[in-house]
Amino acid sequence: MASDTSSDALVSSSDPKHPANHICSLCKQFYTFGWVTGTGGGVSIRNGKHIFIAPSGVEKELMQPENIFVMDFDTKEYLRRPLALKPSACTPLFLASYTLRGAGCCIHTHSQWAVLVTLICDAGLQGSNKDVFSIKEIEQIKGISRGGTGSTEIAEGGRKLGNLGYFDTLHIPIIENTAHEEDLKDTLEEAIRKWPECAAVLVKRHGVYVWGKDVTQAKTQAESLDWLFQLAVEMHKLGFKWT
Amino acid sequence: MASDTSSDALVSSSDPKHPANHICSLCKQFYTFGWVTGTGGGVSIRNGKHIFIAPSGVEKELMQPENIFVMDFDTKEYLRRPLALKPSACTPLFLASYTLRGAGCCIHTHSQWAVLVTLICDAGLQGSNKDVFSIKEIEQIKGISRGGTGSTEIAEGGRKLGNLGYFDTLHIPIIENTAHEEDLKDTLEEAIRKWPECAAVLVKRHGVYVWGKDVTQAKTQAESLDWLFQLAVEMHKLGFKWT
Amino acid sequence: MASDTSSDALVSSSDPKHPANHICSLCKQFYTFGWVTGTGGGVSIRNGKHIFIAPSGVEKELMQPENIFVMDFDTKEYLRRPLALKPSACTPLFLASYTLRGAGCCIHTHSQWAVLVTLICDAGLQGSNKDVFSIKEIEQIKGISRGGTGSTEIAEGGRKLGNLGYFDTLHIPIIENTAHEEDLKDTLEEAIRKWPECAAVLVKRHGVYVWGKDVTQAKTQAESLDWLFQLAVEMHKLGFKWT
Amino acid sequence: MASDTSSDALVSSSDPKHPANHICSLCKQFYTFGWVTGTGGGVSIRNGKHIFIAPSGVEKELMQPENIFVMDFDTKEYLRRPLALKPSACTPLFLASYTLRGAGCCIHTHSQWAVLVTLICDAGLQGSNKDVFSIKEIEQIKGISRGGTGSTEIAEGGRKLGNLGYFDTLHIPIIENTAHEEDLKDTLEEAIRKWPECAAVLVKRHGVYVWGKDVTQAKTQAESLDWLFQLAVEMHKLGFKWT
Repeated sequence: MASDTSSDALVSSSDPKHPANHICSLCKQFYTFGWVTGTGGGVSIRNGKHIFIAPSGVEKELMQPENIFVMDFDTKEYLRRPLALKPSACTPLFLASYTLRGAGCCIHTHSQWAVLVTLICDAGLQGSNKDVFSIKEIEQIKGISRGGTGSTEIAEGGRKLGNLGYFDTLHIPIIENTAHEEDLKDTLEEAIRKWPECAAVLVKRHGVYVWGKDVTQAKTQAESLDWLFQLAVEMHKLGFKWT
Repeated sequence: MASDTSSDALVSSSDPKHPANHICSLCKQFYTFGWVTGTGGGVSIRNGKHIFIAPSGVEKELMQPENIFVMDFDTKEYLRRPLALKPSACTPLFLASYTLRGAGCCIHTHSQWAVLVTLICDAGLQGSNKDVFSIKEIEQIKGISRGGTGSTEIAEGGRKLGNLGYFDTLHIPIIENTAHEEDLKDTLEEAIRKWPECAAVLVKRHGVYVWGKDVTQAKTQAESLDWLFQLAVEMHKLGFKWT
Repeated sequence: MASDTSSDALVSSSDPKHPANHICSLCKQFYTFGWVTGTGGGVSIRNGKHIFIAPSGVEKELMQPENIFVMDFDTKEYLRRPLALKPSACTPLFLASYTLRGAGCCIHTHSQWAVLVTLICDAGLQGSNKDVFSIKEIEQIKGISRGGTGSTEIAEGGRKLGNLGYFDTLHIPIIENTAHEEDLKDTLEEAIRKWPECAAVLVKRHGVYVWGKDVTQAKTQAESLDWLFQLAVEMHKLGFKWT
Repeated sequence: MASDTSSDALVSSSDPKHPANHICSLCKQFYTFGWVTGTGGGVSIRNGKHIFIAPSGVEKELMQPENIFVMDFDTKEYLRRPLALKPSACTPLFLASYTLRGAGCCIHTHSQWAVLVTLICDAGLQGSNKDVFSIKEIEQIKGISRGGTGSTEIAEGGRKLGNLGYFDTLHIPIIENTAHEEDLKDTLEEAIRKWPECAAVLVKRHGVYVWGKDVTQAKTQAESLDWLFQLAVEMHKLGFKWT
């Protein structure tokens, strides 16, 4: 369904926490972190049956609520599709977090630390397992939730109650990048299923997808993970092992 | 005592220097420093018999005065305990600085530089003493007060008059991290007693606790120490010794 | 033509996207990126037959619309020349992007990452070709347009439709610096002709010139390139190859 | 002369460029650069016979115009001395730039890049001359003025017309640090006399003093130098020579 006057109501609100406004303020903030440089990265929020998604190829820090796409979660049809803008190629990846984990928000960053971590893992410089980033005994991993398994997979953001402990090992799977972002869908879903506790998936030479049951959990996990990726790169430079 | 209308007065003030307001503005600032990323870290201010403490697990940069816990210094009972929020696991550590040093403010950061310094010390790469960070002949150490000893231990923030000199050596003890933050209490208190002049305690792979007689001293010492931790990491990368 | 009252109209507008206002807001932003430190760097926007150019030697973050020079694209005469200010030495370089590529905006930064990349290339540390920076298989290169060739050279910003793909190799030519910035004109034009798809030219030990069909493309490409330069330096430090 | 009501007029103005206001806004900005962390660093402006100086030991980013000291240039007596504040220990150093170079503004930073550069020089890692930082063939050195010599020593900021060229070598002398900042006076004056073209003096393991004929020149030179110090450290890490 194309954008028209009636669909404007989906993104018009004076509440700063309305998803259309919230995505814009988050993108402004993430721009200062270097997460959405040069139109890269993206953010999506699920509100009941409505999926709100930042468009592709726009300056994320300048985005306005009227630029936001809205999709119906059940039919996967666009309820609002701003003319002249392209839907985000990340859409199938955001949907994977909603479908497989019951997430309420998904953040995709082009953080340099994420990219560097995938390079270090891929070269086998921190361990033999090249397709997963692992780190332990760093207090900040307590900022990451335990994820969900088995039957609880899609309840409450698909994650077990509570967060990782200091002596737990954090694992974030790494998938290969593809020519087209939407083609990451299958391997991303496979990684989510293979690592039922993961809170994020790294994409080699590309960035990271992080989700949470709501905006707060997605954002704070994205922050904690980025902090850990940066620390991991610095640890590697100084000759320290991650696990 | 649970939060109720009467306890709201404890955190309601139009004065930006009121502890409940001050903690919020400090946390906003510290967020930009990477000290309280992803709900990490914390701040506490003592105002006479009232201890004001930021809650656990909230986005520190978005915190509001009504989120602040207030504890009675004598009874250690909560005078105000916001429903739906958890008290900070740092509380026993903050109290240690008030009790053993007569501090008026205590800041806990998850600075990456602090964590990296503990890793370098632990590996014995800058000296044989693994449980203390030491540095000397850097002008910035003049930003750190001399600390207090013996009978003056709890007077005026528990610190001797005046700051360290350029030719003094700054020592910050390092304690092991524990699974639960509150379990740091005993070793932190032991470190404070063992190093009567220290202005802070580093926690391995975790961060740092810094205090001062008032907010200004705690904040400026936290800044100077973080500056020194960062410099120390860079010095180490370049092959320079800290002492 | 010297500045007079009649020429003030060329830079007076309440529209934040008017070129005179836009250059000022871009420079304020670029100052925070370290791109125009200490009066370095510059920005120019072409609006039809009018070329707007930031002056030389002023604090870019404090610049006001009345400080902007305006040149006629056809005659290369100044329509507005603020008294007491010097025209930018970058002017012939900006004009090259307008003439040879039909660009609508050109950004010159003194980014440290750009300078370091030219040093690494010049030393032959990442490949035998010292006069071009090349990188591939990094998602962020998809933020750079394909450039234009042959007969389409000056149409639509002089660039082919669409952006580079993940498996394409990004090439940015590097030219030698000269004593006087305006003397870069010939080699910069030569580089633009030799690399018909390039979106930018690096200047050794100096910085980078980036253009685009409009402000948005120039700015987002400048951001993506700077992101890539920084990543490239970090990759080099960690021992990774760019191609 | 102690602070009293009559001296308040010296620092009261609604003009943001009044020295008392300007010092405060500069310090707020420099705080974000890490130049005045933890009360470190300082700024002074000379306005005719009045020297305006930031006080010692205060949070520079929170400073107010009423905190500023004012000294008479001829008599070196304080015209305004805020009670409860200490005059800056940098005062004799600021005065040296005014007396020997006719400067109009002097900035003292505790930049980490400045400190690291002095460590690299002192270890003789970039050349045999340990008491001067030298760099050449970097475009940004064109942001530094040529300095003054002989009979023009105190005219127009004590500096020759024009700035350094790309093929010139920038030299910044380095002096030993002392236990008390005011004791730097003799060696700083000696360095200024020995290097008649220098725009700044580095202090080993401490920071840098940068001056200019006015605030704009002092600030832009401080920025360009800090940019160069940072680049120099990165060049050193990557194995490049500065000259």
